Amino acid sequence: MKFNEIGEFGFIESIKKQCSTSSKNVIKGIGDDCAVFRANSNRVFLFTTDMLVEDVHFLMDKITPYQLGWKSVAVNLSDIAAMGGIPLHVLISIGIPVKTDVELIKDLYRGMNDICSHYNVNILGGDTVASKDKLIINISLLGDGEEHSVLYRHGAGPGDKVYLTGNVGDSAAGLNILQNKISFSYTDKDYFIKAHNEPWPLVETGRIIATSQLAGAMIDLSDGLLSDLGHICEESKVGASIFEEQIPLSRELRLLSSRENFNPLELALSGGEDYVLLFTAPEKNIHAIEQLSREKDISPIVMIGEITNEEGIRLTDSYGKSTFVRPKGFDHFSELS
Amino acid sequence: MKFNEIGEFGFIESIKKQCSTSSKNVIKGIGDDCAVFRANSNRVFLFTTDMLVEDVHFLMDKITPYQLGWKSVAVNLSDIAAMGGIPLHVLISIGIPVKTDVELIKDLYRGMNDICSHYNVNILGGDTVASKDKLIINISLLGDGEEHSVLYRHGAGPGDKVYLTGNVGDSAAGLNILQNKISFSYTDKDYFIKAHNEPWPLVETGRIIATSQLAGAMIDLSDGLLSDLGHICEESKVGASIFEEQIPLSRELRLLSSRENFNPLELALSGGEDYVLLFTAPEKNIHAIEQLSREKDISPIVMIGEITNEEGIRLTDSYGKSTFVRPKGFDHFSELS
Repeated sequence: MKFNEIGEFGFIESIKKQCSTSSKNVIKGIGDDCAVFRANSNRVFLFTTDMLVEDVHFLMDKITPYQLGWKSVAVNLSDIAAMGGIPLHVLISIGIPVKTDVELIKDLYRGMNDICSHYNVNILGGDTVASKDKLIINISLLGDGEEHSVLYRHGAGPGDKVYLTGNVGDSAAGLNILQNKISFSYTDKDYFIKAHNEPWPLVETGRIIATSQLAGAMIDLSDGLLSDLGHICEESKVGASIFEEQIPLSRELRLLSSRENFNPLELALSGGEDYVLLFTAPEKNIHAIEQLSREKDISPIVMIGEITNEEGIRLTDSYGKSTFVRPKGFDHFSELS
Repeated sequence: MKFNEIGEFGFIESIKKQCSTSSKNVIKGIGDDCAVFRANSNRVFLFTTDMLVEDVHFLMDKITPYQLGWKSVAVNLSDIAAMGGIPLHVLISIGIPVKTDVELIKDLYRGMNDICSHYNVNILGGDTVASKDKLIINISLLGDGEEHSVLYRHGAGPGDKVYLTGNVGDSAAGLNILQNKISFSYTDKDYFIKAHNEPWPLVETGRIIATSQLAGAMIDLSDGLLSDLGHICEESKVGASIFEEQIPLSRELRLLSSRENFNPLELALSGGEDYVLLFTAPEKNIHAIEQLSREKDISPIVMIGEITNEEGIRLTDSYGKSTFVRPKGFDHFSELS
């Protein structure tokens, strides 16, 4: 069945059941002019949104509808994780080309629903509209946290150590494989494609880091390691020095890059969409953070360098040779032009 | 200058200054992974979102960029008004075709900024992305209210009176004029075009009605009088009886329809996008509501009929002849297919 046959109201009716809300704080979910909910007092709210447009952010033949639903929520959850918050409620806007199969959209909602259930996030409603020919998804996510534990981009200071909470470059390798830019003679390509299409936002890890009070600044890696570290530097008015050898790469990426003869660091530094967390912490907290990284529910934490008072980011390779880079974020506008 | 020349980050930088936040509750606006703000305790939150897609919801040659910005925020404010809440914070997602003039987008933001300033709404950030060829706008708006005064669609009961807070049909006349469906030999077409392109959401009126505790259910007219009254009936499991003669029409629409020889009621009943409020209230509150309608800051309140326990909506014309209608909401999917 096509979307124009079931219609907007018919479709909303059919997904209403899927979008159950379990929280006692939700007074009204889907089905009125607004969703209505109670807030926990003495907490601050975190509010974020992301728009994904077909043929700009995703290609329908490179991602399954389920994965697309999952990922569009995941990238927002990752923003909440990056502040150390708890995700609570989402609104989902979706622009659907009229000839789209209803089953495709149901699969998309299944992906959204699964990741929301996993993180106890309530789907409170949204807007379902027609689109001319491209699928468009916009997610707005509200979370909360303790005011004193929220981590911003501006909290880094010279001498602080820089940490990553997981491997980088796998997602970019997945994208390259999907785009046939990496010739692939190796069996486990699903690992990379999953890293790109079905990322796990590090919500628990972000919470543990934020509530530990050990860190100064935090961000999630969406634009790419250099670019996102650049955001921290810009907002904190500092520089950074990174050691290439310390950047965590998966065993799978090391294997792939040696077989296919490319430098995995390029993907690790600029690839983007890793959705691991980058944070900074004063040197005096080194041991406490080592301790923290042994806790359950937290991703592995690796130190990759430190914050400096120079401008820009200094990259030091395994021979001790340094170069300065001025990160530039990935810009869809320049890519498409 | 085109959008691909200034780039995403350059553009965000250029609008950051415009999007000032005055509230002491806003801790962080644009420029981090999430916006951060404090909540007023003992209140409930209202959360709503709307997506507008070029060539589905608007045509670039029928609305100015300023008006488009204004309207895309207005339709969300109207949803908060419909629950009787106070609008607080917005996130703006926008998908911009790369060859778009930067000035056009700045005008769009000027419209958004003006309406937000008027209603003391903080622009806390959003997402600026590239789009292939259509402009896409998604607004997410958060407001709050007192739990006991929020008005839902489900609060109407048989015997309640049905009220409108303003004229209906002007917006639809404006749309028809823009589409050249109404031949136009009359000078004041700007009145109708403005009603369609630059609606004023009735936030103050919604607040006064909700806090008066006189009403049972409320909705804003976006789909059209019959369709939106239908939503109230459906959620409240009731019917309604409406007297055509009591439906408030502007002097301008009466004039236009008599000169151009069409029935204004068609536009008033099914045109949509009026953004006035429809509410119901028990019969015993008739005098109190008359009293209320004399307050300052409130739009004129007109009774148009009553809630029944029949199914559907009964329309009675000036000769006393009744017909039953089953409202069907405006569905962009069936329109485009």
